[in-house]
Amino acid sequence: MNILLTNDDGIHAEGLWAVQKALSAEHEVCVVAPDKERSAVGHSITLMHPLIINKVHTNGGWGYAVSGTPADCVKLAVREILDTRPDMVVSGINPGPNVGINIHYSGTVSAAKEAALMGLKAIAVSQGPGENRGFEHTAAFVSSLIRRIMDKGLPAATFLNVNVPACAPEKIKGVRITRQAIAPLREKFHKRIDPRNRTYYWQGMDTQVLDEAPDTDGTALGGNCISITPIRCDMTDYDAMEQLESWNLKM
Amino acid sequence: MNILLTNDDGIHAEGLWAVQKALSAEHEVCVVAPDKERSAVGHSITLMHPLIINKVHTNGGWGYAVSGTPADCVKLAVREILDTRPDMVVSGINPGPNVGINIHYSGTVSAAKEAALMGLKAIAVSQGPGENRGFEHTAAFVSSLIRRIMDKGLPAATFLNVNVPACAPEKIKGVRITRQAIAPLREKFHKRIDPRNRTYYWQGMDTQVLDEAPDTDGTALGGNCISITPIRCDMTDYDAMEQLESWNLKM
Repeated sequence: MNILLTNDDGIHAEGLWAVQKALSAEHEVCVVAPDKERSAVGHSITLMHPLIINKVHTNGGWGYAVSGTPADCVKLAVREILDTRPDMVVSGINPGPNVGINIHYSGTVSAAKEAALMGLKAIAVSQGPGENRGFEHTAAFVSSLIRRIMDKGLPAATFLNVNVPACAPEKIKGVRITRQAIAPLREKFHKRIDPRNRTYYWQGMDTQVLDEAPDTDGTALGGNCISITPIRCDMTDYDAMEQLESWNLKM
Repeated sequence: MNILLTNDDGIHAEGLWAVQKALSAEHEVCVVAPDKERSAVGHSITLMHPLIINKVHTNGGWGYAVSGTPADCVKLAVREILDTRPDMVVSGINPGPNVGINIHYSGTVSAAKEAALMGLKAIAVSQGPGENRGFEHTAAFVSSLIRRIMDKGLPAATFLNVNVPACAPEKIKGVRITRQAIAPLREKFHKRIDPRNRTYYWQGMDTQVLDEAPDTDGTALGGNCISITPIRCDMTDYDAMEQLESWNLKM
């Protein structure tokens, strides 16, 4: 397979190169990743500035470093860098989980979403919570999962959001197909005073998932299971359409 | 009602103040908007830098200008600026439509999504395509729509993405409840050489909607109808879950 590999932590990130090593034995892997960390940029794209591409040697391999967001990387790779459309796009491995409403903010997830919007098969992969013990077990799971995806296919404009526990591999209890939790975060801003006596606010992000229903991504991960959530690019609330029709709205 | 008004074009944008004027006659309106244009930032939030809030007098009114993204503005307004939770969050009026897959990139839409994630009723409002003839007719429609929403309610974690044609109001043919088109854009990068002889890429964005099915947002707008799409914050592809279960994945 031709695989495009990207992330939101930047081209030097350990999690990205763990996947690159695991997949390179069997596949052609091309790395196109942001030149620096771009966490929480969501599905941001760069329209106001030009993008620069530099070849970078790092972590025993090389890739293209792009001065943009994860979604920019996918667009630029497919439209300009790669000679052929990739068979699969992998985004990650992100250190720290991407579950629940956090996936709206995640650059890791948005890179896979961009690929799915372009009609490509894609997965976003994150690992955590908990101490980082290396990414080898997650990379090995990615390797087997993408073979299965090539075999079975995915619905159009749907990609997989994969979260793997950071615990020792032998403690992982299995694989669960889950839904995205949508319970709000318990988040807050730190209000502080700067050296020139002005008030500023710094956003904390509490990743705690409050929706503890058994079928959610966060619950599976909390139970030391790998969580796989199919994510749809079509955001239409079809059930609500009928309700809105009955409003009989006029200009 | 207490209404929070934001946008992605920044606090000085004409479309924002058209809504502010239309709604202020009946409601308490608080403006919290980015201090400059933040188009195509998607659901980006600011974690790496502090945020500054400044009171700004502009367009015959005043509001809070935030050094962050549209989603930051909604979070900061609800958590820190407003004394009470707003009854409604309005994002816009964006000059130019937000339909099809463009809504993944849109700061206007993501501000409303952030509000819905926080459990608030919300709408994103855009106007176009075509020549900008002022925003009064769109602002008037917003005014009647939010009354209807307060009366009828919205499903939890669902908001409305509203697009109004830019044509003269008497040419608008009605209101259509639509689905989000997910056809790819015809987009490309301009490859150029900079003054120091380096290659750079600049992203063009073709907003043409290629999915011409009669029930999509872009088709309705193209037919001079107001398009209203209910958008769900839960991105799970429930249909795909069953299919994935049958894969019987293991670690």
